Amino acid sequence: MICAPLALTLGDPAGVGPELCLKAWRALRDEDACFVVYSDPAPLLAAAQLLDLPRPELVKDADEARRVFSNFLPVIALEACETEAEAAVRSIEAAVKAVRAGEASAVVTNPVSKARLYDTGFKFPGHTEFLAHLTEDLPMHGARGPVMMLSGGGLRTALVSIHIPILTAIQSLTSDAVVHTTHVVRDALKRDFALAEPRLALAGLNPHAGEDGALGHEEIDILAPALDQLRAEGVDIVGPLPPDTMFHEEARAQYDAAICLYHDQGLIPVKTLDFHGGVNITLGLPIIRTSPDHGTAFDIAGKGIARPDSLIAALRQADQMTRNREAAS
Amino acid sequence: MICAPLALTLGDPAGVGPELCLKAWRALRDEDACFVVYSDPAPLLAAAQLLDLPRPELVKDADEARRVFSNFLPVIALEACETEAEAAVRSIEAAVKAVRAGEASAVVTNPVSKARLYDTGFKFPGHTEFLAHLTEDLPMHGARGPVMMLSGGGLRTALVSIHIPILTAIQSLTSDAVVHTTHVVRDALKRDFALAEPRLALAGLNPHAGEDGALGHEEIDILAPALDQLRAEGVDIVGPLPPDTMFHEEARAQYDAAICLYHDQGLIPVKTLDFHGGVNITLGLPIIRTSPDHGTAFDIAGKGIARPDSLIAALRQADQMTRNREAAS
Repeated sequence: MICAPLALTLGDPAGVGPELCLKAWRALRDEDACFVVYSDPAPLLAAAQLLDLPRPELVKDADEARRVFSNFLPVIALEACETEAEAAVRSIEAAVKAVRAGEASAVVTNPVSKARLYDTGFKFPGHTEFLAHLTEDLPMHGARGPVMMLSGGGLRTALVSIHIPILTAIQSLTSDAVVHTTHVVRDALKRDFALAEPRLALAGLNPHAGEDGALGHEEIDILAPALDQLRAEGVDIVGPLPPDTMFHEEARAQYDAAICLYHDQGLIPVKTLDFHGGVNITLGLPIIRTSPDHGTAFDIAGKGIARPDSLIAALRQADQMTRNREAAS
Repeated sequence: MICAPLALTLGDPAGVGPELCLKAWRALRDEDACFVVYSDPAPLLAAAQLLDLPRPELVKDADEARRVFSNFLPVIALEACETEAEAAVRSIEAAVKAVRAGEASAVVTNPVSKARLYDTGFKFPGHTEFLAHLTEDLPMHGARGPVMMLSGGGLRTALVSIHIPILTAIQSLTSDAVVHTTHVVRDALKRDFALAEPRLALAGLNPHAGEDGALGHEEIDILAPALDQLRAEGVDIVGPLPPDTMFHEEARAQYDAAICLYHDQGLIPVKTLDFHGGVNITLGLPIIRTSPDHGTAFDIAGKGIARPDSLIAALRQADQMTRNREAAS
């Protein structure tokens, strides 16, 4: 099946994004996962020179991108911007526009600097919320998120809450939030991961999942009602599981994704197992979006030493999700 | 160096303890880590029959235990008890008494059922607190705990709080608790792990270690003062580190132990990496104590299928700690 190319964003031009674009292209040029970068060409040309790789090729459209991909990194040129934050935002907007127009199949985003974005008046907490905004008028099949899922080391974890203090995450936990997150995850796994009936696992909140109330009551008061509702709907979900014993190799083979209640509960196991190759997948958007699971890494940018493992995994993941969605529709 | 044998407890006789004693003996009979079980012999005889292994040998003292160890599992016989919980408690008391008397070098405990202990009026939250009580009159070098440390998969994590609700763990976190835990860990790593100047890492509490206050203030209000104090004392400690990126292979090579702030922050990475071989080590007791990192496993007890990896690792760990402490004294 021929899909449209993936739309890759540049990320912050001063971060590792430009060199990762080139390194990922070098790794994937002979594979099916064709992609095109939406960017001012300058940082990509500089990165190609740094890495002693062929100059990226400016292309007009998806067809041309596909034709050149095995020989050159295809770039759809955007105008140069005054600030790096603005360049990062323009790249995201162009990539989303391309997917909306059917010229690209999915968005894969390189890392941005939130601090720099905020300094220029960017109004969204992060990438994910901005992408939700840019696609909020689009229809979609299944429950709408966004929900952040991490994938790596043979494990998928989806998060009920993300970038908030852990105390707030615990105090604001509700049955409704667990149910809604689970709906988004289940619908996405069916639609984009070719899983007919996803097997889900819900993490407990407290040590040993509360030991019947001896070590905390949220399992009884919040998680049990959510599980009752989900099972009544026919969702295949186990839990609440003791968080410390649910992520090892034999345990994680028993489910397709774990629903986790706070940021580090879901991220610690994935990043401990697969620090370099983990992928961040946004579920519950009208468009498919993945990203590498690391930041701009300003400290090593421009040295040619950044590892492209995570971006490569994100591109392959987005390509596979695109094929699954096409096959199902 | 010839040390006294390790004192191994039976754990709950209806759990996997008896068969693990036999399996660990089978694995270690030709090694230096000699041990003796303090127990009513009946459950061990039954386990030997189940596993088709030689009958355990009743011995009178450490010397006899060492003589028979390569041929038979040595047992110091205790009287039969009315309840399994009582048998578990008597075994712990006898093992500690042996270490106090110099007849054994360290205590290694098999799993007990807290629920069963509580039913018989046991007044301690768990094993660890009971061992602290049985040794509270003994002098010791270094800061006194107890502090729970998990070791496995090339990672050691020590916990500021253990078996309390996560909300309580967060709300009761103090600089003093972090400093005290760190003192206990540092002193124990020097004394029992032969580390001249342990390299420590303190985990943050919030996502991304709070991002300078944007995602929570505990790093600024609680952890930074603790780190200031510890560094002023000359402790080699980094942090607060983002919890999700501090446990992968390259990161954990940078420190000897991570100080973690709540149960699952420390247990998720160790048990995800090494579910079967993880060891629980109690730091800051006057005696050395290790244990396997799993429960009684009543559901598989008596079937001969329980894996002894964790108990074997616990015995080897206790043996090594004993040798380190002897060498240092």
